[in-house]
Amino acid sequence: MPTFNAPLRDLRFVLHEVFEAPRLWARLPALAHSVDADTADAILEEAAKVTGQLIAPLNRSGDEEGAQWLNGEVSTPRGFKQAYATYINGGWVGLSGNPGYGGMGMPKMLAVQFEEMLYAAGSSFALYSALSSGACLAIDAHASETLKTTYLPPMYEGRWAGSMCLTEAHAGTDLGLIRSRAEPRADGSYSITGSKIFITGGEQDLTENIIHLVLAKLPNAPTGAKGISLFLVPKVMVNPDGTLGARNAVSCGSIEHKMGIKASATCVMNFDGAIGHLIGEPNKGLAAMFTMMNYERLSIGIQGIGCAEASYQAAVGYARERLQSRAATGPVAEEKAADPIIVHADVRRMLLSMKAMTEGGRAFACYVGQQLDLAKFSDDALEQQQAAALVALLTPVAKAFFTDTGLDSCIHGQQVFGGHGYIREWGQEQLVRDVRIAQIYEGTNGIQALDLLGRKVVANGGEGLRSFTAQIRQFASQADAPFAAPLLDAVQRLESTSDWLLTQAKGSPNEVGAASVEYLHLFGYVAYAWMWARMAAVARQHHAQDPAFYSAKLATAEFYFSRLLPRTLGLEACIRAGSAPLYGLSAEQF
Amino acid sequence: MPTFNAPLRDLRFVLHEVFEAPRLWARLPALAHSVDADTADAILEEAAKVTGQLIAPLNRSGDEEGAQWLNGEVSTPRGFKQAYATYINGGWVGLSGNPGYGGMGMPKMLAVQFEEMLYAAGSSFALYSALSSGACLAIDAHASETLKTTYLPPMYEGRWAGSMCLTEAHAGTDLGLIRSRAEPRADGSYSITGSKIFITGGEQDLTENIIHLVLAKLPNAPTGAKGISLFLVPKVMVNPDGTLGARNAVSCGSIEHKMGIKASATCVMNFDGAIGHLIGEPNKGLAAMFTMMNYERLSIGIQGIGCAEASYQAAVGYARERLQSRAATGPVAEEKAADPIIVHADVRRMLLSMKAMTEGGRAFACYVGQQLDLAKFSDDALEQQQAAALVALLTPVAKAFFTDTGLDSCIHGQQVFGGHGYIREWGQEQLVRDVRIAQIYEGTNGIQALDLLGRKVVANGGEGLRSFTAQIRQFASQADAPFAAPLLDAVQRLESTSDWLLTQAKGSPNEVGAASVEYLHLFGYVAYAWMWARMAAVARQHHAQDPAFYSAKLATAEFYFSRLLPRTLGLEACIRAGSAPLYGLSAEQF
Repeated sequence: MPTFNAPLRDLRFVLHEVFEAPRLWARLPALAHSVDADTADAILEEAAKVTGQLIAPLNRSGDEEGAQWLNGEVSTPRGFKQAYATYINGGWVGLSGNPGYGGMGMPKMLAVQFEEMLYAAGSSFALYSALSSGACLAIDAHASETLKTTYLPPMYEGRWAGSMCLTEAHAGTDLGLIRSRAEPRADGSYSITGSKIFITGGEQDLTENIIHLVLAKLPNAPTGAKGISLFLVPKVMVNPDGTLGARNAVSCGSIEHKMGIKASATCVMNFDGAIGHLIGEPNKGLAAMFTMMNYERLSIGIQGIGCAEASYQAAVGYARERLQSRAATGPVAEEKAADPIIVHADVRRMLLSMKAMTEGGRAFACYVGQQLDLAKFSDDALEQQQAAALVALLTPVAKAFFTDTGLDSCIHGQQVFGGHGYIREWGQEQLVRDVRIAQIYEGTNGIQALDLLGRKVVANGGEGLRSFTAQIRQFASQADAPFAAPLLDAVQRLESTSDWLLTQAKGSPNEVGAASVEYLHLFGYVAYAWMWARMAAVARQHHAQDPAFYSAKLATAEFYFSRLLPRTLGLEACIRAGSAPLYGLSAEQF
Repeated sequence: MPTFNAPLRDLRFVLHEVFEAPRLWARLPALAHSVDADTADAILEEAAKVTGQLIAPLNRSGDEEGAQWLNGEVSTPRGFKQAYATYINGGWVGLSGNPGYGGMGMPKMLAVQFEEMLYAAGSSFALYSALSSGACLAIDAHASETLKTTYLPPMYEGRWAGSMCLTEAHAGTDLGLIRSRAEPRADGSYSITGSKIFITGGEQDLTENIIHLVLAKLPNAPTGAKGISLFLVPKVMVNPDGTLGARNAVSCGSIEHKMGIKASATCVMNFDGAIGHLIGEPNKGLAAMFTMMNYERLSIGIQGIGCAEASYQAAVGYARERLQSRAATGPVAEEKAADPIIVHADVRRMLLSMKAMTEGGRAFACYVGQQLDLAKFSDDALEQQQAAALVALLTPVAKAFFTDTGLDSCIHGQQVFGGHGYIREWGQEQLVRDVRIAQIYEGTNGIQALDLLGRKVVANGGEGLRSFTAQIRQFASQADAPFAAPLLDAVQRLESTSDWLLTQAKGSPNEVGAASVEYLHLFGYVAYAWMWARMAAVARQHHAQDPAFYSAKLATAEFYFSRLLPRTLGLEACIRAGSAPLYGLSAEQF
């Protein structure tokens, strides 16, 4: 039975030492009085308990049992209801919510660390509140004061959940094609009709109410993506005093049978003239929904890190215990029949790949969280604007790179177990199945890559990219910066490849799509190189305080630079082959 | 509901045009009168029917239902029993079996193509006979005449199945640790006692008998791998006249609950003084078992190709139908709401990656099959010996590279489906789950890589490798060889990296293990480059006969060389980083 222990020491290393979050918080007026190092530590410790002791023990049984649908009602697996009740009592759903409506107002840098633990403990359980947090963000940013006052407090409390209703059977990536419609009603509300698919937590038995954020089209709306509006549609109608009224005309038609996240209900949701409220401006729904989607994209990225961390912990434990063959350099555990497999080079390669990518991702998530906090809380307009630009640039990288490499890590973690990795009871194969969805939902990783290269790099002539690489160059130019030479080399590769693509993209519309996924990976490896150089700098500085801990960081950084970063050589060469080789075949010739 | 159509035109292209198999068969005495182009085509066509119409329709339901264990009996999913009966009537189990005992004596070059179809149609179903074919091979090569006469005919017929009992709970990779023991009995047979795990098809309801090949230790056997013997242990005792007698003391204790291949029973097998017969010499069991294992390794490699082909067919079909967004160069299907996603560069990248790797693998499997046929049937001792050396070199590459890239392909094929790829009914996620085991069983891919680099390259000072690369150089030196420059460049990279490793390995025992997996991938990419250059040469030559078909081959070759082969740059750089970065942490520091 797999267990999960939150990597508190590593989380604190990133938060306190590498990013010195408490110093940042102290200078931001909105945070200075609500969070400091001690508060953060107390929250992380409590989060470790909740995730490790309450949620993780339900992960295997939740997978075996799955969510069940019967006559429109969804039952979550045994234990979820009680655990969810305990969980929301801790106030976790509103952790980074607006304090004006009952949120805890904690910084994102802290929230990303909590989310990592949550996904590591159980992706399915995590999703029931992850969507709520995102829905709250969209409501807080775009809804009327009345809607905010009515809906945010119980959602932050976790008594009500949120869902995100975008996809229709014929409209996934291309939301401009949606057919759900919204008819204005005399009282200013709307009547929503349509069918949505793949709705995570669209129905469940955990909360009193579910607040659906629904994309639909107003009468005579412009065609395509410019004619989409966003509506708040409660499962149960809410009276003006906040009490619950009649059931709304929303129902769950069925749930999907999936590869993984089986305890998470993925619903077909039918809206049959359901009453809804417009959020934000008519026909600007996609922009409003993107507030939620960007939040979710980072969150889903963190699912990749969380699953990889869980898989890593299990794999290291197994590799220390499992005895098989002797070390190439001679017996290590002579008293035993064979050596623990952690002595073998290839097992170490797998474990170190997992470790380097997971910790690199953890640091990068904290960095993106820092930029989100600056964009939200800074009182310096320029700083705020720069941070917002970085968030836009880095969100697709976080979502796709965390999850692509998260799958790789979980596959490594499964491989370390040999045959046992394929057996359900050990939990490693579940992590592979559970993490796999994170490359698909919230915009496939292919779409993230298009967003990165097309909208965030090429569209602004590489300006956003240069503000990011300038930070890396500045770091690497410090006299004592570790790994400065390979880091600069990697940045140079990213910049020159980007420049080449900027030129190519002018003449050939297919270049962006042809290069995008490999480009995102190149970007990710360079970003992690910066993270590892920063972690190495701190580890060097603090080495004497805890040599075992910090020397492991230095050794992992060394592994990253020597054995993983060189993959960028192949990525660059593939990108520079251009789009022509993709168009040598007609559709019929495939 | 996914369907499978055997890619007959592509299979024939490889067999008849690229490798000119009928010409080879005509000059080998054992084959000249039993197989020619027409026979091969007839067999392939019949195989296409059996796999596409009989086996493939059971693949989804077989996954949902799974194999079931009750009181020691295993039930295969609905439809398997009837389908198996029809299947064995076709003689498929004995396709490449020894004609002296009822086999069909067909060449391996043909058998690998049949196996690809079989795995594409359904991995679980395929496994019930794949183990039989391998067991027959070991019996044919090492058992006494009496055993051969008694056991081979019903096994080739498929009335009896075979299993392969190696692994014990504490002994997987390290078989030297096994505890199962064999006590001699007065009549020359042995009494076998022990418990084996992960036994594919150890129990089932498809055949009258199951012939277990079991590794066990004789009394006073040397310790470790040198003290292992191989025994034939029937589930039901066989009378001297070949009729069935009493049940032997073999029982199935339970079956595993797995990630995939759920319709294949993976059994715990208990031998409680079961009567068995020694195969081959005492204490030489591992060598005898390797006859079977090498066969199985190529077969399991082909599982990777088969699953990838099935995933590719579905993904292409979906990409041609699914309408989403417009092509970057402007609308292609103006009359529709959006363009089919096959117009998008990134979708093409995924499909072409699948196509190039699957067809590259298919050609390489045929090449390895050719070497197996030469090793078995050639009447030229030198040719036979060279072919056997190539088989030894290339078997681990085939097993691991086919399956590592097979998983990649199935993940691409799932990704092309977007959210639907994660839903069970579409079948794409099943292929990911089913193919994943192929990287683990029959020796993990890490073990294959150690075998390749340690035993097959370093141990003979690179001699085996050079005989392989010499063939590629010879091809590339022809005046009209397509892709000669990048092919020579790739071979040069493989050779120089190998030379570097030969030097490194002398001083440092960990170098082989540190480099092995990336080395195997480097080797695989170079081998596929040769395959694609050969396919391109034939496609160029025959172009006028079927321009659509052959230009697709040329375009796919172009894609392979420009967009996939450059990955070798990163692989080489990672290898050359050496083993030191893997040993910077103690076991406790992970």
